[in-house]
Parts: sequence; C-alpha cells; structure tokens
Amino acid sequence: MSDEPSSLSNDSPAPAADVEPVAFSRREILQGSLIGAAAIGTLGAPAVAAAQAAPVARGTLSHYHVRATDKTVHWGYFSKKLPPVVTVASGDFVTLETVTHHANDDAERMVQGDPGVESIFYWDKKRKGVDRRGAGPMDASVFGRGAGEGMGVHVCTGPVFIKGAEPGDILEVRILDVKPRPCGNPAFKGKTFGSNAAAWWGFHYKELIEEPKPREVITIYEVDATGERDWAKAVYNFRWIPQTDPFGKVHKTIDYPGVPVNHAYTKRNFGVLKNARVPIRPHFGVMGVAPAEADMVDSIPPSYTGGNIDDYRVGKGAVMYYPVAVPGALFSVGDPHASQGDSELCGTAIECSLTGTFQLVLHKKNTLPGTALATLNFPLLETQTEYVVHGFSFANYLAELGPKAQSEIYGKSSVDLALRDAFRKMRHFLMTTQSLTEDEAISLMSVAVDFGVTQVVDGNWGVHAILKKSIFSAG
Amino acid sequence: MSDEPSSLSNDSPAPAADVEPVAFSRREILQGSLIGAAAIGTLGAPAVAAAQAAPVARGTLSHYHVRATDKTVHWGYFSKKLPPVVTVASGDFVTLETVTHHANDDAERMVQGDPGVESIFYWDKKRKGVDRRGAGPMDASVFGRGAGEGMGVHVCTGPVFIKGAEPGDILEVRILDVKPRPCGNPAFKGKTFGSNAAAWWGFHYKELIEEPKPREVITIYEVDATGERDWAKAVYNFRWIPQTDPFGKVHKTIDYPGVPVNHAYTKRNFGVLKNARVPIRPHFGVMGVAPAEADMVDSIPPSYTGGNIDDYRVGKGAVMYYPVAVPGALFSVGDPHASQGDSELCGTAIECSLTGTFQLVLHKKNTLPGTALATLNFPLLETQTEYVVHGFSFANYLAELGPKAQSEIYGKSSVDLALRDAFRKMRHFLMTTQSLTEDEAISLMSVAVDFGVTQVVDGNWGVHAILKKSIFSAG
Repeated sequence: MSDEPSSLSNDSPAPAADVEPVAFSRREILQGSLIGAAAIGTLGAPAVAAAQAAPVARGTLSHYHVRATDKTVHWGYFSKKLPPVVTVASGDFVTLETVTHHANDDAERMVQGDPGVESIFYWDKKRKGVDRRGAGPMDASVFGRGAGEGMGVHVCTGPVFIKGAEPGDILEVRILDVKPRPCGNPAFKGKTFGSNAAAWWGFHYKELIEEPKPREVITIYEVDATGERDWAKAVYNFRWIPQTDPFGKVHKTIDYPGVPVNHAYTKRNFGVLKNARVPIRPHFGVMGVAPAEADMVDSIPPSYTGGNIDDYRVGKGAVMYYPVAVPGALFSVGDPHASQGDSELCGTAIECSLTGTFQLVLHKKNTLPGTALATLNFPLLETQTEYVVHGFSFANYLAELGPKAQSEIYGKSSVDLALRDAFRKMRHFLMTTQSLTEDEAISLMSVAVDFGVTQVVDGNWGVHAILKKSIFSAG
Repeated sequence: MSDEPSSLSNDSPAPAADVEPVAFSRREILQGSLIGAAAIGTLGAPAVAAAQAAPVARGTLSHYHVRATDKTVHWGYFSKKLPPVVTVASGDFVTLETVTHHANDDAERMVQGDPGVESIFYWDKKRKGVDRRGAGPMDASVFGRGAGEGMGVHVCTGPVFIKGAEPGDILEVRILDVKPRPCGNPAFKGKTFGSNAAAWWGFHYKELIEEPKPREVITIYEVDATGERDWAKAVYNFRWIPQTDPFGKVHKTIDYPGVPVNHAYTKRNFGVLKNARVPIRPHFGVMGVAPAEADMVDSIPPSYTGGNIDDYRVGKGAVMYYPVAVPGALFSVGDPHASQGDSELCGTAIECSLTGTFQLVLHKKNTLPGTALATLNFPLLETQTEYVVHGFSFANYLAELGPKAQSEIYGKSSVDLALRDAFRKMRHFLMTTQSLTEDEAISLMSVAVDFGVTQVVDGNWGVHAILKKSIFSAG
C-alpha cells in the first residue's frame, strides 16, 4: 500500500477489524459454491466462445470480507490516490458490504442499529463520520453545501488493490452473490428498506403536471431481507422540505448526500402504490476502477472505467470487464440498488444497501492478444445469455471534454450521443470478437441487437446494446 | 363503401377475387383456435385488470381473407380517402397478406412465382402494377424519383373499414397469427426470404469506418417457411450500385421503393454472417389507422394513429389499441418483418412478407368511460405479460409541425424527445388506468419501467416504455 500514498484528508488505512480473511476450502471453490451456477467469465479464454471460465492463478486463493464502515468507504468520488482497503491477488474473492447514500432519508429504517452504517452517517455539530462527500473542495467554496460539495454522491466500498494490475490490463469482476443488508433496527427485524428519490436531476423534473411544481419526492420501499420474496413494495412517500444539517446548513433541495431527514416535520403518506409489487433486480449502480485522468473524479458520470453505469443487469451471476487505468486497478463498489428500470427516470433507483461477493480475475496485457478482450476499452457486461456494451454520451468524458470535463459533462449529454457510442462499441465488439466485416456487424445490429436507455440522470447519459450469445452458439 | 370515394388515381375497389369470406364455425372461435392461447384484449373491460377479453358483437362473426395484389395494397401512404378493400363489423376476423416493399432486392427469391407479389411489383417500360409509391406528387416533380416520389415506402394491405367506427372510438387489434409467406419460386421451395438494407437513412450511415464511404449494403436472409426453425440466417450481401428502373430513371441510392435490382451487375458475397443465427421475431412494422390531419400521409413517420412503429413486439399474441381518427378507422398493415432489434439501427429490419390474422374489436366512445381506454390518445401495445406505450419525438407530428410537417419531421427528431414523450404517455397510462398520483407514477417508472429505443430511422423517432403486468397482478 505504501506506493499509493493518500493525499485525501479524511482517509486512513482501514483497520484490521474492518477487513478479515474468510476461511473456505479449495474444494468449496471447485464445487462451484462460491462461483455459482453461471457459466461466467468466458471472454478471457483464447477461444472466443469458450465455455470454460478463464483460468485463475493457481495455488492458494484468499477470500476477504470488507465491512462497510467510515474507514472502508470513500464517498462521492473515485481516486487513484486512495489507499486500498485490501490488497488481493488475481483469482481472490472479496465480499464487499455496500451502503446506500440514501440511508438517511429514513434513518430509523436504514441506519439505526447498524454500527457500520451508523459510523458512515455519523454527523453531529462537530464531526461527520465521513466528512468528504464528493470530489469538490473540502471547504465548500463552490456551493456552500459541505465538504466535497456533493459533487459525487455514492458511498463506495474500497478500493481493492489487485496485485500486479497495470494500465492496459483488463479486470474481470465476477459477481458471485448479492444479498440485501438486513435492517439493524429491531423494530423492523427481517426487513430491508430502500429509498427512491424523484429529485431535481431527474428527467421528469421540469415536466411535472401536478402542483406544487417543482417538487422532490422520496418513496421508501420495503424489501424482503431473506431474499425469498422477489418483489418490493412501497411503504410511504414524502415531499422533500428544507432540511437543516447538524452543521447548520439548510438544504432546500437534495443537494448533498447523507443529510439526515427530520421526519418530525415531513408529511408521510403511507399506503402509496399499495397495489404495486415491484420486481426486485438487486445490483450495483456503481462498480468500477479508478480513472487515470484526474486525481479526484466525481462518482456520478460513468466512463470507460465503469463507475455509475446504473444497469440493473450488473447483478448476481453477471461478469463485468473493465480496462485497468492505474496501478492496482483500485476497484470499488457502491450505489446498491434493489431495483431499477431502464432509464432510472426520476434520478434514482430503489437505493438499498447490499452485500456482494466478487471474484477478481486479472487479465494481463500480454495475455490479451487473440482473446475477445484484446482491444476492449470500455466496460463490458457478460451474463449467462447476453453480452451488453455500455455507451455513454461521451465514451471518456474526462479526456474528451478537457480540464472542465467534470462540470461541463452535466450540460452536454443526450441520448442520441449515447446511442451513437453504444453503436460504435457494439460494432467494435462484433468486428473484433466475431471477426465480422463492418457490413456484417451493421446488418446484425439492426436485426438482432437491442438498444435500450440505461440512464438519463448521471451527467454522462447511457445507452446499452444487448447481444444474445445464442446468435453465435452454433458457430 | 360509397361514403369513402377515392380521389387517388391508381386505386379502385378490390375485385371480389382478392377478398373472400373464410368459413369457420362459431365453435372454433369459442374454443380459442382463432384467438390463440393468449389472454388478450383486457383493457376495454370495465375492470382495469380484467382477465377476460372484452365482449365482441354477438351473433354471426365473419372472417375475410384479403390477398395481397396490386388491387388490395396502397404503397407508401395512409389516406382517409382510400376506398376500403373490405368492410367488417366489430369482432370480425380478417386475414391480411402483407408484402415487403424490399422484395425486388432479390426478385428471384421474393417475387417470382408468386402471382400476388408479381402483380404488385410489376414494372415494364409502360406500366407499374402499383404506380403511386409514396405520398408525393404523381409527376415526381420534387425529386424525379417516380410517382409518389418514394415519400413513404411501405406496401400496405387494406384499408379495412370497420362499420360504425368514428373519431373518438378505440380500435383494438388482436394479432391472432403471423406466418411467413412461402417463396413462390420452385427453386426455393419451403423457404422464405427477407432483405435487410443498411441504407442512407440509417443511424450508422455517416459513421462508417471501412471504405468505400458512404455505401449502402443489402443483406438477404433466409427464414424457414414452415415456422419450425426459430432463427434466420444470412444468405449473401451486396453493395447497392446505381440501378436503372424500367422507366429509365437511375437510382444511385435506395431512393424509391420497389426498384428491381439487376443482379447481373451486383457483386454478391455469399457466406456472410455464416456463424450467426438471428432469432426470429415475426411482426408488422406498419400497422394502424388513417390519420385525420391530411389526405395523403407518408407511411414512414409513426404517429398517434400507429403506422410505422417498428416495435418487434407487435407480433403474434399481441394486441394493439389505436385511437380512431376517421370514419371506418381504415385499418392497414404492412412492412412485415421476420426480425428486428430495438433501434432498427441501419434503417430496416429483415423485411419479409408475412400473413397475419387479426380480430378487430371496436370500442365505441360512449363505452370508454370507466375503462382503461377512456383517455387513450396514442397507440398502446398489450402482450400477455406487458403493456408497452410508444413515444415519438412528436406525439402527433402532423398537428404539431403544421403544413410542412411531412418534410420537417425528418430534421427535427431526437431520441431525447421520444423519451420525453414515452415518459409522458406512461405517466398518463399509470395515472389513468391504475389511479396513481403523479408522484406514485414517477417513482414506479424509475424503479420498474424499462425504456428502450424503438427506432431511429423513421423520421419521427421512437422510444417505448415497458410496464410488466405482474406489478399489479396482486392488486
């Protein structure tokens, strides 16, 4: 870790108590109990459509469990300067607890009684458990919102340093398991809760038809903590009213993450959406590696290194591939969602703390030629049945938009641009991994690839393109 | 039919030989052999989530079969002035043969030996089987391409006049069956073919990376005519080269529908996409009723009356609901597709002649209050598991863009606008059919509704929003 000194004021190496090795037998892995039933990670193998998982490092594999605490999370940004919370070898497993940045929308249901979450959201007149929230200045000299200015909002667990990872390599992340984090408050035993904020950055915000306009509305959803019930239900909603944070700043809108909502003054409408069962799709909105272009990068806009892609398909059984941009890759996960629709229209999903177990497999640059990962320069998703490429309005906005990229990206996005990028990436994927001509790739895209709206609320808007594996299964 | 006189030069009432009643028993319907296994048409019933189909007119139901010939199709336009090819009562069945306007991309495989298709595509030095192709002037005074100027390209079968239909009513169209049209050429017995044109109006056209740029490429696909094989395969592709039509006009690009391609001069590349099996999704790209706003309406841009929606979900088992805009509704179907991906990126699908069987159910205006159809003013799709609303860059471009709408629509569309329209329509659908507040509807859209790119090649671009019925099934 000493080669990654921290320049960030509120970060210190995670204490041993927050990271612990997990005992498991080699046999457990071989039997697939950790790997799960999915045929995963097929792209790193020499043959394009190999059914076997890519080989991992032989020898002893380790499994670490990283608790989510004020010491193991970074809030609202990616940074190549962050000290890792754990260092792993290729093939190792890591369980990362992740916490939603919306937990304080209802502290009773999402914070209280959970020591890890309490440590993250701790905020009294003198101190915050995690002071920096966002990539902005610590002295709040831009907007006066608070340290980090909320320029980036997601509580991210990590980073995980992968030994030997260097720019040009590909990090394969296998999502082996995703579980809801049970509510720590005995009053809600066996339940889990999430928050959906219809906020000022939502696509709907300037289009409201009912009064008062505009308004922000938060809906609290209940999720079954056992995972047996495959749907969520709404508990209540309330209109955001100005909230005074413990430092005395007033937040007229949802402009800074983790502001505790004082429900003594809100009007809660119970029984909303009473006939609706929302299918759950547990996944991680933010997952990725640290970008190289800047020291502090807002966690909101997704980019070539992943981050806030907000694709509900990034759940259990899925595999993500990321281009490594900095030494050690610095993998982090956050923004856990119980469910989300394509577009994430109102600004958020059901934001709900989840715990994920991942296997991290490093593909070194010199092993890539001849594989499907050889020229991958964007985040790629593989599920049991599909490949999904993620297009953004700007494929690498930090490089494309220059020094002011992190502010300008918020005014320049369109779905049209994201569609163009998804088209270019899918064409590249088909031409490189299936050896198609451009004409073959374009015809196939028109007749068999589905383009959907991933999100229109993350600064750098997203369109994904879905290719069914079965198209080439007879090849 | 006398109340719908034709002002269109090349149309005359269809001869009896092209339309015939089909014998079937009442029992056949009750047993569901024509209706199929799907639970269809639930929205016209008084209860929102009624499981039963809406009642149809009692008494004798009729079933008509409309052959596709030069007398039963209109090419490239909708028109409230068209004489109907058949008049039906609510509840009646109609089988409509539909023919792809791309059949002449390979006449050997898609025209020859099929008398109906031959009559449509007939074109010698003196005469075309169907002269008008498009809503443009007959004297080709705008572009010099040909009669109708190709301002609209789809061969549409119909219109079907529904007795008693008036503006303000809703027409429910149940798609009971969709079958490929077998190749009429004995050399290709048992097969069916389709054409995919990567054309100048495609989203990819200005983005090509391989030379020569730009270029148009047509790929011919083979589909199993028996319907037993659920995938299509490419046969060959060729680059479009200038084609001289039988009247002597040269078409440097694909600028007029039905121009016969002379394969003596093309270079056909057989064996393209040889490892790819394209899943088939037989559906109708164009299906809808005549708009009220203009006498001649280009068939390319979709609108509130349906038309060229190009959603692959408009296939067997699906139900479409359209607002009736003119007396008799004047329902037509065309642009048959063997398969298409969401976005129809390169400009077309696998354009492949299909035959559909439909049941047409009229919901009179005075029966709508209290039903889910009460305020429907856009084309709505219902499948066994989903409701799909169709958003366009302009919900009713003919009304919104004024007298020059039919040309201006081609320069004004964006996916962003279509997404906004889909959002507005889904909000309306949820608020009216599920009695949700705006806040409830917006939250649900963000966490459970999927927005996808329907098409970006039809002038008026489309985004659809998918709502799972299961969300409300416990209500």
